[in-house]
Amino acid sequence: MSGITATYLIHDEKNLEKKAEGIALGLTVGSWTDLPELTQKQLQQHKGKVISIEEFDAEDKVSAFLNKRVKKGIVKIFYPGVNFSHDLPAILATVFGKLSLDGEVKLLDLDFSDDLLAEFQGPKFGISGIREKLGVYDRPLLMSIFKGVIGRDLSFLKNQLKDQVLGGVDLVKDDEILFENPLTPFEQRISAGKEVLNEVYEQTGHKAMYAVHLSGKTYDLKAKAKRAAELGADALLFNVFAYGLDVLQSLAEDKDIGIPLMAHPAVSGALASSSLYGISHSLLLGKLLRYSGADFSLFPSPYGSVALEREAALSIGAACKENVRLKETFPVPSAGIHPGLVPVLIQDFGLDSVINAGGGVHGHPNGAAAGGKAFRAAIDASLQGISLTEKAKADADLRIALDLWGQVEVSK
Amino acid sequence: MSGITATYLIHDEKNLEKKAEGIALGLTVGSWTDLPELTQKQLQQHKGKVISIEEFDAEDKVSAFLNKRVKKGIVKIFYPGVNFSHDLPAILATVFGKLSLDGEVKLLDLDFSDDLLAEFQGPKFGISGIREKLGVYDRPLLMSIFKGVIGRDLSFLKNQLKDQVLGGVDLVKDDEILFENPLTPFEQRISAGKEVLNEVYEQTGHKAMYAVHLSGKTYDLKAKAKRAAELGADALLFNVFAYGLDVLQSLAEDKDIGIPLMAHPAVSGALASSSLYGISHSLLLGKLLRYSGADFSLFPSPYGSVALEREAALSIGAACKENVRLKETFPVPSAGIHPGLVPVLIQDFGLDSVINAGGGVHGHPNGAAAGGKAFRAAIDASLQGISLTEKAKADADLRIALDLWGQVEVSK
Ligand SMILES: [Mg+2]
Ligand SMILES: [Mg+2]
Repeated sequence: MSGITATYLIHDEKNLEKKAEGIALGLTVGSWTDLPELTQKQLQQHKGKVISIEEFDAEDKVSAFLNKRVKKGIVKIFYPGVNFSHDLPAILATVFGKLSLDGEVKLLDLDFSDDLLAEFQGPKFGISGIREKLGVYDRPLLMSIFKGVIGRDLSFLKNQLKDQVLGGVDLVKDDEILFENPLTPFEQRISAGKEVLNEVYEQTGHKAMYAVHLSGKTYDLKAKAKRAAELGADALLFNVFAYGLDVLQSLAEDKDIGIPLMAHPAVSGALASSSLYGISHSLLLGKLLRYSGADFSLFPSPYGSVALEREAALSIGAACKENVRLKETFPVPSAGIHPGLVPVLIQDFGLDSVINAGGGVHGHPNGAAAGGKAFRAAIDASLQGISLTEKAKADADLRIALDLWGQVEVSK
Repeated sequence: MSGITATYLIHDEKNLEKKAEGIALGLTVGSWTDLPELTQKQLQQHKGKVISIEEFDAEDKVSAFLNKRVKKGIVKIFYPGVNFSHDLPAILATVFGKLSLDGEVKLLDLDFSDDLLAEFQGPKFGISGIREKLGVYDRPLLMSIFKGVIGRDLSFLKNQLKDQVLGGVDLVKDDEILFENPLTPFEQRISAGKEVLNEVYEQTGHKAMYAVHLSGKTYDLKAKAKRAAELGADALLFNVFAYGLDVLQSLAEDKDIGIPLMAHPAVSGALASSSLYGISHSLLLGKLLRYSGADFSLFPSPYGSVALEREAALSIGAACKENVRLKETFPVPSAGIHPGLVPVLIQDFGLDSVINAGGGVHGHPNGAAAGGKAFRAAIDASLQGISLTEKAKADADLRIALDLWGQVEVSK
């Protein structure tokens, strides 16, 4: 049957079966037992259904934190597709609209029936399309990030970009807090970026992409994105969660915006950080970003100071590549990444992932180009099946990086 | 100085001063002490500043819940307005982008400098404009809600609307989970609603407004809202948080959409429910909705089963009417409202509020019209300074409602 099955984590004082039944009816037909038989017949196809309830012992510390003795349950509820238009705002308002306000309820997952999934186009390029653009098929991609660019001019950005790309970085992304500004306006960043990338390509044969930050008012984004595409921008960085998933989807579906979309997780922590409320990381930064058309999903790695729990980070990576009809989204575990983490990154997120570093590139004692080279050497070592220590014997950039940041052993 | 001061509640193991300094720099110029003096001079105007840090004893149950011994602090940080474009996505990404992912941080408030506030137009109508439309100046407004409308046809909706309005309800809102559907399409709902409201007006002289639910894809909303205005819709109900605050603002700023906007809190619980993460209720459902142009802000009342803590609900009401240059937003405390709560509602949210009931109108033993009348009688009693019990002696509708739902004493 067409529809969506939502999985919730619920902490509640009361009977979970009653709570689940209340949700299934309250978010669909409203009431049931008091309806005349004929009306029940008419409304049958609209009625939500409790699919399953698993009850667990809630941890004492949770009850103590909430000042009430709660039960813990994982509840699955089915919402008929006939009840809502097949856009994400309608879906979110149905499965987690009023319910998001109703006590300790966290939305863990959504399962779309095939006909509903068919209404989502997903990434326009995805992992395979990005690999084709770059001509890189056999290794994780390497990305780095502009740093400290607020208040700086175009020549500063150009130098930074050149240094990064000369080190063999595949992708460079704008800072997500660099907005429209007189020193480095959007269109000029695109042109300057192209100029630098072409120069490096001609010098070295290394091809890279620059993801320029698409920002501004919602209803100006499409025209701005089209203009970026016309100017030859390689990709767009987008703070999805400062806008809405549907905006990302509309950008991805627009045929005149034929360039990859990189979703930044800014603001998403407000939705996903709590273990009791909000939306799970895998659903928000994995499944829904992919359904909405993100070619890349950035999220905190499990290794840095701004870190996700390992399980949460891995669940995002899994959702990006889960076996559904859509193209895959590149998982980009970010923050706190240095070359010594490359083997663990590949173990945790696979070859089809992007290794993304800010400080780990710029902070290399010999500069950003050396930082990129150290990463590329670490990636080569992992593919060759040799240890970083071994590789570093013949690679000074890597050796310096490992001396500075250390390395993390892969668990066998 | 032009900019925004953000107030955060932080729980952290580490030194709060260091954390605050890291935020102020990390979300603006990136680094400072290692910059050459000349660069410091250039970047001075872009540098974030720690305004204040108040440290408190964190509750033991919070540390236990988080599995680490945390300190608790309220930290204020100033972000220069020159760093971001003056739209809410840029503001949110600056003050709570990456930071939302960085441990236990909750965004409590944002203070805009006057020049920044001047870029927000706020509600087009506001409390005064809505009162003018209805010709009601001296009492709280009364609103009711369509109930159980999924799968029902236009004649069902028309009957429900008529019953509600005949009871003296001022506003009727669509169900926020009724989307575009073949039985009761958007445009037909508007026309049918107008027909019923005109009929009642001609019969009784009572004027009411019907807020039709604006839904669908983000980039279709403006055309749909304009069409609604052309068809004479009274107001638009909008699930802001299933889209984005900037979408609401763009609808409010559009001169061709000259009708009031009613913000529904669907999905907002995912952002606001946690005491440790996310965005405070007063900021999200009060200040930011008002700055974005909501004429009405619906939120859970402190009295029902889907309830907010009293302090949180009151803080929303206060933000809706805080003394700034913008028109005021009508606070609409919702859920669990019955006539016996009217004195408390007026005490808590003032005469300039909307009393909003679903079950409290429809569940009246004598029907929705009687339900509305009971509320109006309770409002009259409060204005006359007499008790509900006293009023109920001469008002059967109110008496029946009080018998069914009871009443809550106003604390003196
Ligand atoms: Mg950044
Ligand atoms: Mg409702």
